[in-house]
Amino acid sequence: MSDPAEAERLLGDGQERRKVRRDLCAVCFMAALIVGAVIGLAAVWASLANVETLPKRNVILMISDGFGPTSQTFARTYNQHVNKLKYNYVSPLDEILVGSSRTRSSSSLVTDSAAGATAFACALKSYNGAIGVNSKKVPCGTVLESAKYLGLTTGLVVTSRITHATPASFSAHVVNRDMEADIAVQQIGDNPLGRQVDLMFGGGRCYFLPNHTEGSCRIDQRDLVKESNKQGYKYFATRKEFDDLEPGKDKLPLLGLFTLDHMSYEIDRDPAQEPSLKEMSEKALKFLDSATAKSDKGFFLMIEGSRIDMAAHSNDPATHVHDILAYHETIELVKKYVDEHPDTVMISVSDHETGGISLARQVNSDYPEYLWYGLVQYWNVDRENFIKNSIINYGLGIDNVKDYEINWLKEERAQLEYEYYLANMTSIRAQIGWTTHGHTAVDVNLYAYGKDIEYLRGNHENIDIGDYIVDYLNLDLDTITSKLNNSNFHQASDSTHFHADEHHPHTHI
Amino acid sequence: MSDPAEAERLLGDGQERRKVRRDLCAVCFMAALIVGAVIGLAAVWASLANVETLPKRNVILMISDGFGPTSQTFARTYNQHVNKLKYNYVSPLDEILVGSSRTRSSSSLVTDSAAGATAFACALKSYNGAIGVNSKKVPCGTVLESAKYLGLTTGLVVTSRITHATPASFSAHVVNRDMEADIAVQQIGDNPLGRQVDLMFGGGRCYFLPNHTEGSCRIDQRDLVKESNKQGYKYFATRKEFDDLEPGKDKLPLLGLFTLDHMSYEIDRDPAQEPSLKEMSEKALKFLDSATAKSDKGFFLMIEGSRIDMAAHSNDPATHVHDILAYHETIELVKKYVDEHPDTVMISVSDHETGGISLARQVNSDYPEYLWYGLVQYWNVDRENFIKNSIINYGLGIDNVKDYEINWLKEERAQLEYEYYLANMTSIRAQIGWTTHGHTAVDVNLYAYGKDIEYLRGNHENIDIGDYIVDYLNLDLDTITSKLNNSNFHQASDSTHFHADEHHPHTHI
Repeated sequence: MSDPAEAERLLGDGQERRKVRRDLCAVCFMAALIVGAVIGLAAVWASLANVETLPKRNVILMISDGFGPTSQTFARTYNQHVNKLKYNYVSPLDEILVGSSRTRSSSSLVTDSAAGATAFACALKSYNGAIGVNSKKVPCGTVLESAKYLGLTTGLVVTSRITHATPASFSAHVVNRDMEADIAVQQIGDNPLGRQVDLMFGGGRCYFLPNHTEGSCRIDQRDLVKESNKQGYKYFATRKEFDDLEPGKDKLPLLGLFTLDHMSYEIDRDPAQEPSLKEMSEKALKFLDSATAKSDKGFFLMIEGSRIDMAAHSNDPATHVHDILAYHETIELVKKYVDEHPDTVMISVSDHETGGISLARQVNSDYPEYLWYGLVQYWNVDRENFIKNSIINYGLGIDNVKDYEINWLKEERAQLEYEYYLANMTSIRAQIGWTTHGHTAVDVNLYAYGKDIEYLRGNHENIDIGDYIVDYLNLDLDTITSKLNNSNFHQASDSTHFHADEHHPHTHI
Repeated sequence: MSDPAEAERLLGDGQERRKVRRDLCAVCFMAALIVGAVIGLAAVWASLANVETLPKRNVILMISDGFGPTSQTFARTYNQHVNKLKYNYVSPLDEILVGSSRTRSSSSLVTDSAAGATAFACALKSYNGAIGVNSKKVPCGTVLESAKYLGLTTGLVVTSRITHATPASFSAHVVNRDMEADIAVQQIGDNPLGRQVDLMFGGGRCYFLPNHTEGSCRIDQRDLVKESNKQGYKYFATRKEFDDLEPGKDKLPLLGLFTLDHMSYEIDRDPAQEPSLKEMSEKALKFLDSATAKSDKGFFLMIEGSRIDMAAHSNDPATHVHDILAYHETIELVKKYVDEHPDTVMISVSDHETGGISLARQVNSDYPEYLWYGLVQYWNVDRENFIKNSIINYGLGIDNVKDYEINWLKEERAQLEYEYYLANMTSIRAQIGWTTHGHTAVDVNLYAYGKDIEYLRGNHENIDIGDYIVDYLNLDLDTITSKLNNSNFHQASDSTHFHADEHHPHTHI
């Protein structure tokens, strides 16, 4: 408006100027009105959009089974000691602590992994042993199933049998966790909802092989490997096949079962035979990322450090800590994925603590002197060699074996007895204390990473984790619950297929 | 500007209008310049103000000695069970969980309360046993002393001896926590800084009485009660005197020591003789609030649930949980104070865990069945009666006493042996596990309430708590450290006054 002619046109004489001012006012008013309206409409639109077209989002739920607060302090301190890290070293989990999760189930102050995982999966409290069913044994829709129903891609990555309590609770509905043969059937898609899981990596092949096949855990003749092929799965069982998988040439659904039973503990794992938890997670993320690249829907992936728990059941500190460190590495990988994909949230939580582990143990009646930071000398050895040599040479790893220990080890005993005894020989020297071979009730740590995690701060019930996932992905579990129960699915699961699992002495973990 | 004449004056003819437009531009420019300058100056002023005249602020540091993550789950669950509260009942601490604190000292992975409290007080890691001195045994300025130096009012409220490790670390500087006679001397103001603590409530009168007085713990003839009067303290020792105290008629400094040794456990406390932690805290807040009402400076108050720790040392679950619930009540009181005084921050943290307590205990070789939720039958009794009747009647509280237990209890034994044994009789029936009579290394829970607590979220080193208080109150610990060390204070403390404390079998807690 530096042109005088233009100013003349606009402003003119007095009357014209008044008009112009009025017009200007009117323009201002209209502009304000329009801006206001736009803001208002935008808010309405955003709100509608939120309901109808939620932005593409991913959830990666990480579960560290049987990992209590002490296990985290233990793993960090061990890592600091072995790798000469500074006292203020911050582990991948320490960086993202947001609160804690309460663990009780509907039937006990001390949950098992089935009720623990069902709390996350169905966002409700159920009884110990419940797999994707509520406290009245009625199937409940899971976050994985609801995500699938809404068009998201889904995956499960574990180091236990894939039919074990935690992964089962997201992908199957049975009244007792021991019904692993039924769980396997449902997991490959033989259930009222059809195939729900697009990617499964883990152990537990034995439940997919027909009876009379070597290593089968089934009492029927169903060949679930074949059936999974019919459901569209590419099935594989070797490290080589795993390594060769590429999103470009291979497609979901994928079913990779590397071992008959659980995969190996990290401390025992042969990398030529079995991928690590981190490697499986990396491959899973590649496939899920690729599968959803051109979609407006994201994915739900559950990753479990399954055997942190089992080592704690054995009160075996060396095995426990190495499975935790493998979990830490996986956390680091997933955090990187979240950094690169900001519409992703990672949650890391445990179902319960195991073992009542404590980082101090009184070994005589004197006031304890806390020698356990000298623990590495007993541990920093290959576990199998440690056990073998402890038994055969009475020397490696532990250089102060007592006569009564030698005598005890000489006796004929069950494998489990040996394991417990050798674990205790290590623990007692490291002054690591345990109070049980079972679970405990302490609140477990809650970790989260990504945008929009404010809700997760503080102390929560375990079912709040499920609620959070429902909200974040805008899921609807009730719809799934209805679909599941429209088909007398529950009754069939309850009575006809149940059989006790005699293969595994510690099924309730 | 609706007047045409005015518009004429402003706009005139073409040339004039151009000038007016230029002037308008100039006015706009100047206005923008002024606004910008004002904003800039305001920022500078705010920044200067921050350095020179920080708003009046209070810090209430609550320390739950020997209180680990399991203790919190335990207390909540016990409270739920006894008072029939819902499963999702949220305790006063649960509401304000913000993270965790790592506890190691400079000398050990497992800290004691002295190094633990010195970490909070001086914001540095020192060795186990250190009271307000660094790892080289040099006195370090504490947050309490720096607050006092800057004009804030200060207080200590505890249930232990006031000379015990935690309160001592804020108000004294000695190389060994057992030097409680010296600690008492320094606490009443006989130190290079002069009187630092305006209010002290707790136990431990014995260190303030001259040798040969009944109940004295001193080996010298100093009468610290008299000396405290000379330093201006109003000294008192009874419940009646405590109740009569009113800010209107009484003035700081106050020294209230209710017992010769530690105050009673909450489960044993006679309310006619001793106030509760909550009552002491309420009175302290009244006095500190009143003393600072007309000042532009606030206060620093440390409140300790001191004996949560000691009950855990005895592995005594009933005593442990009742001292925790008394702490919860105090937390509730202090939260209310913060609500009413928004420039107050409350932090609640522990120095370490004690006992390796776990909420499950294996009592035979079978897989544990977690019966401990039936624990109340063993506990919901007066402790003294419980012990007395357990010994005399072999019946009350525990109705299934074993012969070997009776035989054990019949033998002549030390008091501590009886205590441990009876505590274990309770624990084993409640399936509460303990691994030690000492401390453990697990990270402890960190709680905070008030504005400006974002920094405290997540996992922290214990010294970060000290750093936070320094920042929030704009303290300067170095100045205090210099003042302390200008007077050869250290050397005197080190060699001349040390004597072992023979009165208390468990001094290192």
